[in-house]
Amino acid sequence: MPREAFVNGRYVPHNQGAVHIEDRGYQFADGVYEVVTIFDGALIDEGPHLDRLERSLKALCMDMPMSRPAIKLVARELIRRNGVTNGIIYMQVTRGVAPRDHKFPNDARPALVMTTRQTKPQSAKLLAEGAKVISVPDIRWTRCDIKSISLLPNILAKQEAAEAGAYEAWQVDREGMVTEGSSTNAWIVTGDGKVVTRAASNAILSGITRRTLIKLIQAEGYELEERAFSLEEAKVAREAFITSSSSYVLPVTQIDDATVGNGHPGLLSGKLRQHYSDYMASAGDPI
Amino acid sequence: MPREAFVNGRYVPHNQGAVHIEDRGYQFADGVYEVVTIFDGALIDEGPHLDRLERSLKALCMDMPMSRPAIKLVARELIRRNGVTNGIIYMQVTRGVAPRDHKFPNDARPALVMTTRQTKPQSAKLLAEGAKVISVPDIRWTRCDIKSISLLPNILAKQEAAEAGAYEAWQVDREGMVTEGSSTNAWIVTGDGKVVTRAASNAILSGITRRTLIKLIQAEGYELEERAFSLEEAKVAREAFITSSSSYVLPVTQIDDATVGNGHPGLLSGKLRQHYSDYMASAGDPI
Repeated sequence: MPREAFVNGRYVPHNQGAVHIEDRGYQFADGVYEVVTIFDGALIDEGPHLDRLERSLKALCMDMPMSRPAIKLVARELIRRNGVTNGIIYMQVTRGVAPRDHKFPNDARPALVMTTRQTKPQSAKLLAEGAKVISVPDIRWTRCDIKSISLLPNILAKQEAAEAGAYEAWQVDREGMVTEGSSTNAWIVTGDGKVVTRAASNAILSGITRRTLIKLIQAEGYELEERAFSLEEAKVAREAFITSSSSYVLPVTQIDDATVGNGHPGLLSGKLRQHYSDYMASAGDPI
Repeated sequence: MPREAFVNGRYVPHNQGAVHIEDRGYQFADGVYEVVTIFDGALIDEGPHLDRLERSLKALCMDMPMSRPAIKLVARELIRRNGVTNGIIYMQVTRGVAPRDHKFPNDARPALVMTTRQTKPQSAKLLAEGAKVISVPDIRWTRCDIKSISLLPNILAKQEAAEAGAYEAWQVDREGMVTEGSSTNAWIVTGDGKVVTRAASNAILSGITRRTLIKLIQAEGYELEERAFSLEEAKVAREAFITSSSSYVLPVTQIDDATVGNGHPGLLSGKLRQHYSDYMASAGDPI
C-alpha cells in the first residue's frame, strides 16, 4: 500500500500529491500549518494544535478549510491508511488558488493538505550527550506568533546550525535576548533552580509543547519565570533545553562555544523530559 | 489554444500546472521569483532581471535551475505560445521537492515555473488622478533585498491598502522612514526639485525599474538623492511617485490623509513616466 496524502478533499498517493502553481501558498507563503505528534497511536495535544491553527488563520483573515470534526476525521483516516503509530501529521492551509495578485482574492477556496510520517525514536546519543545549539541574529518579521509557512529565515537559521554541526539555532533579537529556536522554544534553568522561558508575544511562536510543559512545571511545583533571557545568561545557566512537538523536551549542553553546566544533560531537564513523556503516554487523543 | 505554463521542464495547460505538496516553495517559502514586463512584444530589462534572479538564488545558496540562455529560450517560447504582446512573464525558482525538513536537502533539484499574462493598459483614471497610498509599519524580515516568495507581510500590507481604497501601502521602519511599497519602490520630489528614493540596502528590494529610472534621471540631468525620507517629509513633498515593473512610473497624489502637492500628478513625475515609456519603447529585448 503506497503512502497517501490528503490533498484538497482527496486521498492520493503521496508522490502524486500536487497543488496548482498559482496556489497562494506557493507564490506568496500565504498560509499556515501545524505539526501534531503521533505517540503510541495517539494524537498529542490535538485540541490546542487545532485552536492555534484557527488563531493563525484568523490572524490572516482566513476561515478554517473544513469544520473541526471533519479535520479530525480526515487526520485519523490518513493516519490509519498510512499505518503511522509514532510520528507526525502535518497540516497546511493556504488561501487557495487565484491569479497572482498580492491582495486577497474574492473567491478562492482555502486549500488543505495533510501528510503523515512515521519517525524513529530520538537518537540515544543525542539524548545522552544533549544538543548543541548555535546563536544567530533573529532576522524574522514581527509576527512570529502566527504559525505561517513564511519560513525562509527559519530554514536559513536551521541550515546554519546544521553546517556548524549543531541541532538547532537560537535566534537573538537586537537587544541580545534569545527569542526562540528556528523550530523549537528555548529554555534555561538558573543557578537557583528557576525554569525560564520567554513570555509569549509577537516575537515567538507560542509552542504547544511549551504550553503543556508550563502546565506540568506548575503542577509539579517547580519555579517558573516567563521572561526574556540573554544569550549571555543562557551560556552561564545551570541547564538549558528546547521543546517542540517533534523534539519533546531535549537537553542542551552547548551554546556556541560555551559548555552549559557540567556539559551533561541537566537533572531538571531530564525530569521535565520524563514528565512530558509521561504526559504523552497518558494524555493523547485516540486515533 | 489554451494558455500554457512552463513547469519543471514541460509546457502544460496553465490550469493543469502543478507542483508537489513537498516542494519547498510550498512548505517553507524557500524560493525566489522575478516578474519581467512584456511591452509591445519586447522584454524590458531582461538581463538585469536575470542578474537579480541569480543574486537572489545565490543569497539562498541555490543554483540557477537552467543556464541563462535556456531560461531566455523558454521564456520566449512560452510568450510565443501564449501570444502575449503586452503583459508580464513570471518566473519562480524554488529549492525543489524533498521530505519536509528545515535544513537544505542534499539532493533536491531546483524547481522552475514560468507563467505569462496579457495585461490591460493602466487605467486612464488612475493616471489622470494619481495613486493613493497608505502607510503601514514595516513588519518584514531584515533581508528584503532578496526577491523571495516569502511575501506574507507584503500581501497583508497590499490588502490593507486595498481595503482603504488605496493603490499601494508604503512601509515605514521603526525610525519613521519609508522603506518601500508592498510591491513597488517609493519616491518623492522635494520642494527644490530633487528626486529622492531610498538607497539600496537590505531594507528594500533593489527594483529593476528603480535602477533604470535612476539612469534615466542621471542622463536627463535631474538632481537625484539616494537617501531615506520620512513619512512626514513625503506628506509635504512637492511630488511623489512609485515604480515597479508593472506600475512603471506612477504618480502618487495622496499619502494617508495628506494631499501631495496640489493633488494632481506632479510635473516631474509625468516627465519621468514619459522617459520611462520612451525607454520601454526603444530598449526592449526582442522576443
